[in-house]
Amino acid sequence: MTTDANPLLSDRDVDFLLFEVHDAASLCALPAFADHDRGTFELTVQTVRRLARDVFFPALRDTDAAPPALRDGAVALHPKMRAMFEALAEAGVLSATRPASVGGQSLPALVATAANAYLCAGNASGAGLAMLTTEAAHLIESFGSDELRARYMHDLYAGRSTGTMCLTEPHAGSSLGDITTKATPRADGTYNLTGSKIFISGGEHDLTENIIHLVLARIAGAPEGSRGVSLFCVPKLRPDGDALVDNDVRCAGVLHKIGWRALPSVALNLGEGDDCRGWLVGTAGRGLAHMFQMMNAARIGVGASAAAVAYAAYQESLRYALTRPQGRALSGRDAQGPQVAIVEHADVRRMLLRQKAIAEGALSLVLAAARQSDLAEHGADEAQRARARRLLDLLTPVAKSFPAEKGFEANALAVQVHGGYGYTSEYLPELWMRDQKLNSIHEGTSGIQGLDLLGRKVVAGGGEALAAWSEEVTLTVTRARAAGVSAAWCDALDGVVAEVGALTIELAARGLAGDVDGMLSHSADYLDLFSTACVAWQWMLQATAAQRAKGAGRDEAFYEGKLRAAQYWFATEVPRVALLARLCREAEDSYLRMAPEAF
Amino acid sequence: MTTDANPLLSDRDVDFLLFEVHDAASLCALPAFADHDRGTFELTVQTVRRLARDVFFPALRDTDAAPPALRDGAVALHPKMRAMFEALAEAGVLSATRPASVGGQSLPALVATAANAYLCAGNASGAGLAMLTTEAAHLIESFGSDELRARYMHDLYAGRSTGTMCLTEPHAGSSLGDITTKATPRADGTYNLTGSKIFISGGEHDLTENIIHLVLARIAGAPEGSRGVSLFCVPKLRPDGDALVDNDVRCAGVLHKIGWRALPSVALNLGEGDDCRGWLVGTAGRGLAHMFQMMNAARIGVGASAAAVAYAAYQESLRYALTRPQGRALSGRDAQGPQVAIVEHADVRRMLLRQKAIAEGALSLVLAAARQSDLAEHGADEAQRARARRLLDLLTPVAKSFPAEKGFEANALAVQVHGGYGYTSEYLPELWMRDQKLNSIHEGTSGIQGLDLLGRKVVAGGGEALAAWSEEVTLTVTRARAAGVSAAWCDALDGVVAEVGALTIELAARGLAGDVDGMLSHSADYLDLFSTACVAWQWMLQATAAQRAKGAGRDEAFYEGKLRAAQYWFATEVPRVALLARLCREAEDSYLRMAPEAF
Repeated sequence: MTTDANPLLSDRDVDFLLFEVHDAASLCALPAFADHDRGTFELTVQTVRRLARDVFFPALRDTDAAPPALRDGAVALHPKMRAMFEALAEAGVLSATRPASVGGQSLPALVATAANAYLCAGNASGAGLAMLTTEAAHLIESFGSDELRARYMHDLYAGRSTGTMCLTEPHAGSSLGDITTKATPRADGTYNLTGSKIFISGGEHDLTENIIHLVLARIAGAPEGSRGVSLFCVPKLRPDGDALVDNDVRCAGVLHKIGWRALPSVALNLGEGDDCRGWLVGTAGRGLAHMFQMMNAARIGVGASAAAVAYAAYQESLRYALTRPQGRALSGRDAQGPQVAIVEHADVRRMLLRQKAIAEGALSLVLAAARQSDLAEHGADEAQRARARRLLDLLTPVAKSFPAEKGFEANALAVQVHGGYGYTSEYLPELWMRDQKLNSIHEGTSGIQGLDLLGRKVVAGGGEALAAWSEEVTLTVTRARAAGVSAAWCDALDGVVAEVGALTIELAARGLAGDVDGMLSHSADYLDLFSTACVAWQWMLQATAAQRAKGAGRDEAFYEGKLRAAQYWFATEVPRVALLARLCREAEDSYLRMAPEAF
Repeated sequence: MTTDANPLLSDRDVDFLLFEVHDAASLCALPAFADHDRGTFELTVQTVRRLARDVFFPALRDTDAAPPALRDGAVALHPKMRAMFEALAEAGVLSATRPASVGGQSLPALVATAANAYLCAGNASGAGLAMLTTEAAHLIESFGSDELRARYMHDLYAGRSTGTMCLTEPHAGSSLGDITTKATPRADGTYNLTGSKIFISGGEHDLTENIIHLVLARIAGAPEGSRGVSLFCVPKLRPDGDALVDNDVRCAGVLHKIGWRALPSVALNLGEGDDCRGWLVGTAGRGLAHMFQMMNAARIGVGASAAAVAYAAYQESLRYALTRPQGRALSGRDAQGPQVAIVEHADVRRMLLRQKAIAEGALSLVLAAARQSDLAEHGADEAQRARARRLLDLLTPVAKSFPAEKGFEANALAVQVHGGYGYTSEYLPELWMRDQKLNSIHEGTSGIQGLDLLGRKVVAGGGEALAAWSEEVTLTVTRARAAGVSAAWCDALDGVVAEVGALTIELAARGLAGDVDGMLSHSADYLDLFSTACVAWQWMLQATAAQRAKGAGRDEAFYEGKLRAAQYWFATEVPRVALLARLCREAEDSYLRMAPEAF
């Protein structure tokens, strides 16, 4: 707590999450991170948070207020977007997690995610453009030919170009198997691309000379559906001898988004003049599978941004509540006395603690997923890597959707704490609320995440991911008991693990018996239930660390706050698990029975 | 259901709510409404809904896009605001519920509220200005001197002036006892007003020559706190002989609201030049009590607007879901087949049915409150009037806050159903979502409503209001059982009534024992609980009417939809009552224990 300027995230908390909860230092024992120690991690976080506070956040209002427009086929970004992008490219943020062989620092995703969360809290649009660029480069690094790597990867990692992901078409968003953009083979091994893409973030701008589009398209003659989709690298400007020439990628319009306004989301027409060249990335027909590397990273990125945007607004409303006088204590009401700060009112504290429980719980969940991605890629042996891959796969839809869904509720509470002032654009919470709303939509809606979780992730490999998750959570409870955390919370979380396991087996059996609709009809409730459980797990981890640390005379209030947020989650949210499980189990059929004409 | 243009509200549903659920026709038995019959009610609704569709809704996008600004002390409204206001003044909407003696039509509030809901759905800003004008006139009608009535009331009811409510000051919003605007008596019986007001909707504009401000102020020498607050009529232009002269009310700025953008919310300085004249309305020191007539009406008005705004967005997302093709059925997935409309997906249906349950449940609740206001004013005898007053008092905080809180969730779902398109201002749901957010803030935040409900309404008069409510709901269940409504729902609602009663007694006892903080610490949860119960009651009423009507071969799908929405509410929301009751009962203390520095 402080009444200073909004810090975006609490430094004490980020330190706590990285080193007391998620044990970042232990990652240094892995060969991939051997050059690092806690000191280099802290230095990185410090550099990025300074960028967030000095460059990103001060630009937030301006970049929101003046969104770019399309003029003569070009889109001029706000000058402060350039300042942000150049600063983070210079600081090496774009390639931080990549190995030295491609110019990176081999930073664990755990640390990079925590650091980048400051950027998201300060300016989600600016951070979003960075994430797209990093992951476009990473896709080329993983699947591109040597030629493509040489031509584009380094420029992207260095911020001399930016990247995009071109998936959605006007008629195909959630349903990617239905895309129709066509790739016709040419004699020289390249392809002629024709088609229309929409909602392409950063699809046109004047920040860098070139823009590298990673495009899903269908090679002429490929089978229908997902199996016919391939991945292409389609630069805005293509090489022609030593020169770069126009590659017939036209910006057809800029969407008028209600948030993320500094980062243009555009419609692109490829090959209007039949002169748009694409280079196959990876294997033909494996486009969706390849793109999932970028999509999965983007999903964790969306979750991180959502947690951060909820977090910054929580900090803003906390500062307002600490300084805004209004009313008096209910007991001992005294019209003569001075008004009290609104933080003294129970209901304001409720709104603050709910925000804290959501934002800090969400950030912890995202970091847990990031840690698994480090182990999945760099774990000590294949057994550790495989287990981490399973956990990462399982956690991805949750780490993507929980921060978005509950984060939006938290952002609305930050507006509410500000009262009438919160309803004006003179205050920032409404801006963060607008930015937040995108996160339940892009990179797979929450509905898609629910289907992914229940229809794929928890049942994959005979439920091996869920088994690993149960082990993790159970181990967390064992440690919590040993540390002296409330037995009631420990019992409750043990109960939740058992409930999740039993329910999932029942639902899987229903699906195996052929009743797929019945199995999946409550996928949203299942996602809500599993998310609540995952965040309870995160609060158990945090409560354990807090319980261990408190009483030593250092940061007592901080640790006390962590225990109260955990208490809130176990009292208020965990009991919902039983209600949600019942809806799933009984396949409550109110909406399944609704004929369209009955609405 | 239809794929035509958005009807704002479903006519079939409004008809159902008015005549099959809330029995509007029965009101005609009361002397005050003797000139009416179902036909005149229907005619009124028809006239107003046509206004909403032909004038209000078509202006929505334009009036939102170009909010008025302050220039040289003046605020020029969007021309379409004038068109809206003049059209409804001409149609007699402003005075519709008032008696013929003041130029009105003696229309029941029940019918007027249903009709005006179309206006709110079509353009909340336009409808808001009308509500303020009506209630300002009503305040003068009730408490003003003959001179004030003659001078201002008729002009307001006829729409030749507009009215405002001037309560909030920069340092005093929720805490009205702390206002400092001063009224100094003058020799002629009027007062000199000096002070600053903020968030004054319609506080300055060029729509009518005069604006009649109803102002809370403190007469010099009055006691501190609420008892020292009086009510004044402060016109923008005051009479001076036969002329109207400037009354020293200055617009000091226009707030930049995120919604309700056509209706300027301004800061007013009174008496900067020490020449602002006010006329006392009613009794000195009774200002807050008098103002509560307007505030209570405004709270029902806010609830109606919130229900309507959720309703219109639901209709919009329903139309989108019926026509937008995307993906295929989960069972029998077939990449070759055409895509299905998204209404076929379980999760989209869930989002639609949830919106329906909230919007139609909220509208029914608001109409229930409006019906009690008719009985409170015009009931057959004092016993009926007193009982209705108690019920109205009890329902007001719920009818105000439930549509706002859950309506916002519904509005966010309408955005979500639209996917990426919903995140753009090319589509309307984001506009309604912005408009909706105000409703949990103005006319008493949801936090204030919770304290009002638990701290005052349910305990007033030894719990007589709650006893009347329990009788009403129990009677509803009895009738539902007789009609053959699901016994499980009936048992559940009986259980809720018992739970509410027992819990309230426990909490009241805690307060009486001196633990006011403990009693009220979960006022938000109590409000949520009681709101859920009230809406369950409304769905029971609707299910009963539907159950009775169905099987007759008329509107089968409509009635089936009502039963499914009731099913949804009883399955999904009613079970939350037990969880919320436990939090209240145990006075779960996570946030009470949070020291400010622990956040």
